[in-house]
Amino acid sequence: MTEVVIGIDIGGTFTKYGIVDQQGQCLKENFISTDKYSDFDVYLETLHTEIEETIQSVDIPITLMGIGIGAPNGNYYKGTIEKATNLNWKGTINFVDKLKAYYPDIPIVLTNDANAAALGEMIYGGAKNMKDFILITLGTGLGGGIVVNGDLVYGHDGFAGELGHLNVKHRGRQCGCGKRGCLETYVSATGIKRTVLKLISEKIVPSDLRNIGFNDLTAKMISEAAKKGDKIALEAFEITGRILGVKLADAVACTSPEAIFLFGGLAKAGDLLLEPTKKYMDENLFPIYRGKVQLKLSELQETNAAILGSSALAWKELQK
Amino acid sequence: MTEVVIGIDIGGTFTKYGIVDQQGQCLKENFISTDKYSDFDVYLETLHTEIEETIQSVDIPITLMGIGIGAPNGNYYKGTIEKATNLNWKGTINFVDKLKAYYPDIPIVLTNDANAAALGEMIYGGAKNMKDFILITLGTGLGGGIVVNGDLVYGHDGFAGELGHLNVKHRGRQCGCGKRGCLETYVSATGIKRTVLKLISEKIVPSDLRNIGFNDLTAKMISEAAKKGDKIALEAFEITGRILGVKLADAVACTSPEAIFLFGGLAKAGDLLLEPTKKYMDENLFPIYRGKVQLKLSELQETNAAILGSSALAWKELQK
Repeated sequence: MTEVVIGIDIGGTFTKYGIVDQQGQCLKENFISTDKYSDFDVYLETLHTEIEETIQSVDIPITLMGIGIGAPNGNYYKGTIEKATNLNWKGTINFVDKLKAYYPDIPIVLTNDANAAALGEMIYGGAKNMKDFILITLGTGLGGGIVVNGDLVYGHDGFAGELGHLNVKHRGRQCGCGKRGCLETYVSATGIKRTVLKLISEKIVPSDLRNIGFNDLTAKMISEAAKKGDKIALEAFEITGRILGVKLADAVACTSPEAIFLFGGLAKAGDLLLEPTKKYMDENLFPIYRGKVQLKLSELQETNAAILGSSALAWKELQK
Repeated sequence: MTEVVIGIDIGGTFTKYGIVDQQGQCLKENFISTDKYSDFDVYLETLHTEIEETIQSVDIPITLMGIGIGAPNGNYYKGTIEKATNLNWKGTINFVDKLKAYYPDIPIVLTNDANAAALGEMIYGGAKNMKDFILITLGTGLGGGIVVNGDLVYGHDGFAGELGHLNVKHRGRQCGCGKRGCLETYVSATGIKRTVLKLISEKIVPSDLRNIGFNDLTAKMISEAAKKGDKIALEAFEITGRILGVKLADAVACTSPEAIFLFGGLAKAGDLLLEPTKKYMDENLFPIYRGKVQLKLSELQETNAAILGSSALAWKELQK
């Protein structure tokens, strides 16, 4: 019997899940819609049915050991999703308690998606031998997972690591959280789009990006334009790297990590983002830390990284 | 036999030490000069001789269990003081190794002064039942001690928690560390003096502080002026609290503490500092944390708080 866990990644549009062994092999994976279900109980029943079918389809004998879930605003201590702005279900969802009705005999744990990704990096990725590191997810928003002494930092209330809401600028860009000037309004796939539009509004230099509406624009387009030498795109990466670099220097002053990993869509831009971020991080680091902190891309497989992260949460729990 | 440890606090001018029992009673305390000794070995020999005399003067039977040391740029892992700008001894001082020659049979541990103060708060002060909190020291500079899951965060290199060097302003005030715009250049006894001078330079409102030179000005004078309604002093506290509040909101997004304690000279200003800091911290907090984080003054006795902190480090080590 191969011991496996289920890793579930809840996004605004899709809920992806996979059956993962201890080596991080994803034996099977699948997904259901998230936003199609306005009723949480119907969603959960569907998810359970689909998971059971997927389990049946695995062609080797397996034992299900646990379930790990990554979700926006996921609370590790309570097993809840609280006030997630990009999900249909409002208020507090008792996700773990409700899923326990279907799986009463195995541990079920939940945290936010960035924390799950950090555990994935530690168990299967580039942070395998590290006890102190930070992982930054750069998708629609920006998330953070902070590991100290080999353990994820959950904090007093279970919500530590919300680095997307670090304060960059007083009266800066409006953020979905209700504040202004949050880091993720500048540094994320959406953030760099906003920066591109601002630059277009200010400058007269030609750019192919002038032909694309905000809603059609993607981080990938900006990255491709930059690779072709587009000045607006290049400056947008420089600005994004500067803002991220300064904030990473601050994060280093807090927990002094061995490395910082960048993960997710915008991280695919590679050196376009890494180089300015490194430069500005180093410039703004307290001298005692300089040269000691690696800035790297995540080594998790892109295709099912979020599922791996959630499964890592389950394996980590089983080690306790 | 009463079990005791020695707590040593190394400052730029004085080295204070005390003999402390497990309840945080300081049985005896004394000090020697720090800056009088250009030769570290002579300093250490003198410190040892004086400590031995102090031990002899205790009038109850005691057993010495360990020694804890708080020092600027103190490295917990290596037991060293590295590149401390306000000490005479340059480069790296192997403090713990050298002190072990005098005390080979007991644990000797060293960390920076703010980390020691945080442990003092946890063992004897207001954080007794807390597992996640931050302590900020506000003296000549600004230091931070971060506790996560009941343990001090040392980070990968032993220097975590250098919150005085968080980046407040691009091309801001020059800092002793070589950077510009560091938090401690705005928020510390020295920082608020700099703010007062800047306000005097910009405004024409009358103020008693206009009669005092920078070198003679103290945080206490600014606080007394503010209590009398001096507009420059009041605005200086408002600005200091704003800058600190925003940065504390960022620190909360990292480790989500239950409370933040303010400690040291400038913290004596009490509500003058606490109120604007609270206001701006709350405004800049990610909504999920709002109303969950207490901002408090340290509950350690002011007179020998630094000695207590260092002694707490030794007791904490003995618990391991």
